[in-house]
Amino acid sequence: MMESNRVEKVNLAGKFSLIDEYWHPRIVAELNDSYVKLVRLKGDFVWHQHETEDELFLVIRGSLTIRLRDRDLHLEPGELVVIPRGVDHLPVASEEVQVLLLEPKTTRNTGDIESERTVDSEWI
Amino acid sequence: MMESNRVEKVNLAGKFSLIDEYWHPRIVAELNDSYVKLVRLKGDFVWHQHETEDELFLVIRGSLTIRLRDRDLHLEPGELVVIPRGVDHLPVASEEVQVLLLEPKTTRNTGDIESERTVDSEWI
Repeated sequence: MMESNRVEKVNLAGKFSLIDEYWHPRIVAELNDSYVKLVRLKGDFVWHQHETEDELFLVIRGSLTIRLRDRDLHLEPGELVVIPRGVDHLPVASEEVQVLLLEPKTTRNTGDIESERTVDSEWI
Repeated sequence: MMESNRVEKVNLAGKFSLIDEYWHPRIVAELNDSYVKLVRLKGDFVWHQHETEDELFLVIRGSLTIRLRDRDLHLEPGELVVIPRGVDHLPVASEEVQVLLLEPKTTRNTGDIESERTVDSEWI
């Protein structure tokens, strides 16, 4: 049996309260080849896609719009969407939104583009 | 650019309302090599572990206890835990709990044991 002493629960609200900037995802858990990240969003991001990675968005608080090339998705708390690899998307938040992301450890936040919005994620 | 016509959001409450039995996870999304599943729990499950797969539990509604061999974890809505591969665990729900699971597509609900509680997951 494996040791269980490194098993700790994560309180999402508590972790969000530690995040003091927008568009900068922070890692709160890892499993298999993926990270669970939390991010606070406000305003428009940049159009991008991820070549080889599907990405999950679960809205925890606030309202999130994800623009696709042909339509917009509107997500409320308790709603999630998976953006498949290769699909252009642009997250937009007119008011602050708190979002849980699940994505491979290799995922860069701005996907296929390098921009001033490109950031690394750290653990919190 | 990939087609985005298969991108649909998932409303968790709506999906939970379609589940009419306990301990039977249903698939609501897939990304990379994993499924997002929803499950309604009530009562005790069985002790088990997953040899090669980490498993995420996010409580959506109700209170969940996950017993480990050396202690219990108590999770409320908005709290998650990752049970690493190889760690024995026993989910317990004195009242109904609604849980989001994230796990590799290969994961069997009862892990290393075959029991009357072993079920396949279908999409809803």
